[in-house]
Amino acid sequence: MTTTNTHSNHGNHSNAGDKQNVTVIGLGRMGTALAAAFLDAGHPTTVFNRSPGKAEPLVARGARRAATVAEAVAASELVVVCVLDYPAVRALLDPVAAALRGKTLVNLTSGSPEQARAEAEWAAGHGIGYLDGGVMTTPPGIGDSANMILYAGAPELLATHRPALAVLGDPVDLGPDAGLASLYDAGLLGLMWSVFGGWLHATALTGADGVRAEDFTAIAVRWLRTVAWFLTSYAGQIDAGEYPGDDATLDIQAVAIGHLLHAAEARGVDNRLPELHLAMMKDAVAAGHGADSYARIIEAFRK
Amino acid sequence: MTTTNTHSNHGNHSNAGDKQNVTVIGLGRMGTALAAAFLDAGHPTTVFNRSPGKAEPLVARGARRAATVAEAVAASELVVVCVLDYPAVRALLDPVAAALRGKTLVNLTSGSPEQARAEAEWAAGHGIGYLDGGVMTTPPGIGDSANMILYAGAPELLATHRPALAVLGDPVDLGPDAGLASLYDAGLLGLMWSVFGGWLHATALTGADGVRAEDFTAIAVRWLRTVAWFLTSYAGQIDAGEYPGDDATLDIQAVAIGHLLHAAEARGVDNRLPELHLAMMKDAVAAGHGADSYARIIEAFRK
Repeated sequence: MTTTNTHSNHGNHSNAGDKQNVTVIGLGRMGTALAAAFLDAGHPTTVFNRSPGKAEPLVARGARRAATVAEAVAASELVVVCVLDYPAVRALLDPVAAALRGKTLVNLTSGSPEQARAEAEWAAGHGIGYLDGGVMTTPPGIGDSANMILYAGAPELLATHRPALAVLGDPVDLGPDAGLASLYDAGLLGLMWSVFGGWLHATALTGADGVRAEDFTAIAVRWLRTVAWFLTSYAGQIDAGEYPGDDATLDIQAVAIGHLLHAAEARGVDNRLPELHLAMMKDAVAAGHGADSYARIIEAFRK
Repeated sequence: MTTTNTHSNHGNHSNAGDKQNVTVIGLGRMGTALAAAFLDAGHPTTVFNRSPGKAEPLVARGARRAATVAEAVAASELVVVCVLDYPAVRALLDPVAAALRGKTLVNLTSGSPEQARAEAEWAAGHGIGYLDGGVMTTPPGIGDSANMILYAGAPELLATHRPALAVLGDPVDLGPDAGLASLYDAGLLGLMWSVFGGWLHATALTGADGVRAEDFTAIAVRWLRTVAWFLTSYAGQIDAGEYPGDDATLDIQAVAIGHLLHAAEARGVDNRLPELHLAMMKDAVAAGHGADSYARIIEAFRK
């Protein structure tokens, strides 16, 4: 990919001030939220959607509607695309690849790491700067700097466009492998579903004895900060390939989870989730790792 | 249980200052950490363990060793017990129940909610003030106010002894049902194991493409703050019994988890955990709840 155009990216400012022009292609709920955030921050914003009616609320807020994808691409050095999937991206942009040369394409469409890497190759082959992104919030969270937007593919392009991209959410640089935004995105969503599952199990458990979900959750949210501290400690163990158990061995935890299973069973709570955790602990203990920390279980996940 | 002795709890201060006398019974790793925290905070501390050798390091730090459990109980108005299990608590304390009358017994032993409630009844029958506790950290975390210690059973006793108990960790009041500290403890540990599982799955996933656990985990820890926000929102839905899907419906998430399963499968990562999440999502979708939020899954956990 090219970076020769980096400094001229700031060349097509409108008279709205010093905010760079941006183009948003794809006006589903997420694309609409992205365009709205750019508009709110004062960026001259061009929008395009295959079915043009979706642009109307944004035009009412000051967006310029492009009649064609070629017109959309011509309007800005920074082009953000967020459509259904990667084949849709390619179908839209392949015809205008020449017009994208030297510009920066930020692809916030959901897909696989392999698709992202293929898209980065396509972009490089056409001299298009490419960033692949993972939006770690729902559309209403766009524009809140507490939320992360992950970028992978070209750190120097992220540095150049950070001021504009920062209006969408906090930009997190994952480095040059364009596949990593999708990969992190998938992994983080998986973590989220596991948090949801563990929390719902616990909420059902405590709810059975009359505890309100809001009361339990206030404590659970505090507890997550302690758990996060464990994760940070265990991450170092995983990178080192050694899992000292210290004060929280698998032996101890395989016993402790029995209290949970028993209490949940007595209250009619579905125990498939903690039973899976126990099964993985038991396998590690049976393999002679009972004195290790929970981080040892990484080896079971790796199969 | 009695509270008539509340104010005289402060009556047996030593000449070490205005810190109340405390007794710690049970000197395993946790009991030892508890006693050490009291000593560090300047509380005159009496300790007892069935096998007396365990007391020696604490005696070297200024603790007074009681020769018998009766002597230990006589030394302080606040008696903290942390032993193997509830039967061990009863075996130790039933012979000295009369000497505990009017005092406050804080039981930090691990057990079930039913055991805790039975212990509270036993204490009430003997005129002993009773608090049941859940220590939400490992022994090295004792004394750090970032860590929670949950108390259930007698809010007025917690209020009275909060200054002393706060040296162990941040005291969290769960109200008068003595079973709730154990119940919350079990639920929070279950949440922890689910966080561990989701995080290990994601760490194995990203690690397969060369991402260091520490790099992924730094992002995962930030992400947990966003996830915590979802929990707080969903808790209100659960208490209301309504689960509006808004921008993150089960339909959308049942598709999104496909990306995770596919990426993990391609990298040889054990998918039992996300497959369980998907199974629960699919059941909810099949029951006609695809437009609802993930909080709807609480009904599956309740069976």
